[in-house]
Amino acid sequence: MTILSGLRITECAAFIAGPFATMSLAALGAEVIRIDPLEGGLDYCRWPVTASGRSLYWAGLNKGKKSVSIDLRSAEGRDLAQAIITAPGEDAGMFITNFPATGWLDYEALKRRRGDLIMANILGNRDGSTALDYTVNCAVGFPLATGAPDGSTPTNHVLPAWDLLCGMTAATGLLAAERHRRRHGVGQLLKIALSDIALAVVGDLGFIAEVQINGDDRARHGNHIFGAFGHDFETLDGRRVMVAAVSLGQWKTLCKATGIAEAVAALEQAAGLDMAREGDRFAARDALAGLLSPWFASRTLAEAAARLDAERACWGLYQTFSELVHDDPRCSSASTLFGQVDHPGIGTTLTPRTPIDFAACDPVPPAAGPILGQHTDEVLLDVLKLSSGQVAALHDKGIVASAGL
Amino acid sequence: MTILSGLRITECAAFIAGPFATMSLAALGAEVIRIDPLEGGLDYCRWPVTASGRSLYWAGLNKGKKSVSIDLRSAEGRDLAQAIITAPGEDAGMFITNFPATGWLDYEALKRRRGDLIMANILGNRDGSTALDYTVNCAVGFPLATGAPDGSTPTNHVLPAWDLLCGMTAATGLLAAERHRRRHGVGQLLKIALSDIALAVVGDLGFIAEVQINGDDRARHGNHIFGAFGHDFETLDGRRVMVAAVSLGQWKTLCKATGIAEAVAALEQAAGLDMAREGDRFAARDALAGLLSPWFASRTLAEAAARLDAERACWGLYQTFSELVHDDPRCSSASTLFGQVDHPGIGTTLTPRTPIDFAACDPVPPAAGPILGQHTDEVLLDVLKLSSGQVAALHDKGIVASAGL
Repeated sequence: MTILSGLRITECAAFIAGPFATMSLAALGAEVIRIDPLEGGLDYCRWPVTASGRSLYWAGLNKGKKSVSIDLRSAEGRDLAQAIITAPGEDAGMFITNFPATGWLDYEALKRRRGDLIMANILGNRDGSTALDYTVNCAVGFPLATGAPDGSTPTNHVLPAWDLLCGMTAATGLLAAERHRRRHGVGQLLKIALSDIALAVVGDLGFIAEVQINGDDRARHGNHIFGAFGHDFETLDGRRVMVAAVSLGQWKTLCKATGIAEAVAALEQAAGLDMAREGDRFAARDALAGLLSPWFASRTLAEAAARLDAERACWGLYQTFSELVHDDPRCSSASTLFGQVDHPGIGTTLTPRTPIDFAACDPVPPAAGPILGQHTDEVLLDVLKLSSGQVAALHDKGIVASAGL
Repeated sequence: MTILSGLRITECAAFIAGPFATMSLAALGAEVIRIDPLEGGLDYCRWPVTASGRSLYWAGLNKGKKSVSIDLRSAEGRDLAQAIITAPGEDAGMFITNFPATGWLDYEALKRRRGDLIMANILGNRDGSTALDYTVNCAVGFPLATGAPDGSTPTNHVLPAWDLLCGMTAATGLLAAERHRRRHGVGQLLKIALSDIALAVVGDLGFIAEVQINGDDRARHGNHIFGAFGHDFETLDGRRVMVAAVSLGQWKTLCKATGIAEAVAALEQAAGLDMAREGDRFAARDALAGLLSPWFASRTLAEAAARLDAERACWGLYQTFSELVHDDPRCSSASTLFGQVDHPGIGTTLTPRTPIDFAACDPVPPAAGPILGQHTDEVLLDVLKLSSGQVAALHDKGIVASAGL
């Protein structure tokens, strides 16, 4: 038995936040039914794509889901989709969408078909206006605080962090609502705006208070870790590492591994600082980086790594995606996080499970993304209890479609 | 009634992932008890700090929690902490830590006191070795793919995205385990490694398949959105905006708002491309940005915004943290996301609630972070049912402490 065995969630969504929420729940063993229009959703061809045009992005974000393909422009198709969303079952009746919750996706309309429906609606902004990760990120301060200290133009992130965080927040919200429904019998409409995810984090991490209480606007500090010590260094053989000393223990191990303790003591005396204090380490960051640079520059990666690891200092190696995949054992079948999975029409790739291990439940095997419409018939037969004749009629009328690569 | 009314979670954690997980659950109405050593945890003075040394970071990440302060070096203090973690109650017995799960934090030891304990242990790496957001991020490819296309040194992110995502993943995992316990009566040890969070996302978003199937290593594209069209532009009055056209609809509204449709048609003909296709928009990204640059450069922000909004194009303004706080109505008391909250010893600041709205539950008011030890006596009396004499004796022996600013 897996941790979420039995739970069923339906999805009408595209891009990252919604699909990532349900992908994460499918990876915990939930049954997830993704409903798409016959030609595929807005994200069906999203890059990166294979030479034959199959989206690696779509395959990744829909792993372990059932795909149902319906003509959502037709009234009959919409009725069918509503029927799947609101199908009976104590563990069913959960729905997520990032489309406007109007028309056939209106919560009240759906609620008339199932009174205790739990529906999560992901919005751009709280007022319903559009926003994407990119147009939220620019507004919340990070791009202007990222990159070299002497730069002035913004640096966008490549990781769609707000989308991902929004997805996991939605997953948490759905499970919280399911707990509430189980106890009190009532469903729920959840609204989650992508921009609110970012705004809340800006508050949670102290950036708002930094402006309001301290009157500070966080400056660019390049690759320095704010308020502690951490920086990147180049080794003799041209590799680059990040070292971090956030706690006093990490600072001591770093000093010991690199033998800079005496030089640090001299620096402390000269500058009137105490490097046991994180703020003083940050104040002296350039001088400290200056002490460490020659140590790394005169050692190969292997030599530096051996010393750092011997003292259990905290460090990491900069790798491209390709280096990560080819060289890092954490990103290989040697880790139980991954399995080799054949994705139909794409090929076999290293595919992650959920990053959560549950000691007392069965693990969910790493799964492929579905082919568009792969589970249309299965869902119509099993969830809606249609007869095979009814399913055939829907096909004949072009209301539904099955898998085709 | 709030969505998580009744649930109780104990925390022995520091920095971001663990505290953010429980902060997020406290913001949904759960009772969260954070146990710290008498002098405060490793993150008690983490920057940013006020002039008087109070951590804005700590206050933000511990909002809405109860703080209990115990001498964890003493056997009696550890016994007390174990008693709180394993206290009875159908909705209690949930615990999160990012410390090594050994000694008094060993799962088996805790399980002997409460057989159905749910415990989430956040690790650096799966093998138990140390890793921080910074030392994970460098290894998983993003810093070398971030920043100007002609750059070669890595650009670290400022947002601790992996920590935050790890925290929300832990929150989801805890609720999944609680659902399972309610149904089957069994507790659970959850293990979640920070590096696995990042590795799984690299797989989920298609980066691993891009290497393995396509043989590509994602290049740096500066502020261009990969596989679609999106870039930043400077306005006549020196402001900077990000525009994004991920879907065909967004592309059409952008063309209409900026009047570039004819020029785009000419470009399509000359280059043999079809901008209705996202991949072609990406291939022509520099030419398209070249078409749009003069449009923005010849308009003030207000003029550009009026045109973009009239067509509902998707765009955002680059803002510093200070501009966000001072100028953006989404980041103000005008939004129900925020309230003005007095944080003891710090002052009044704009403070976020949970970004999830639950239509059929009471909202949880935005909360302050506790003072260290503020709830020690309350928890000893209410959760452990000690007598006031027993609590006084623990104070006399220096085993526990109450709030002191």
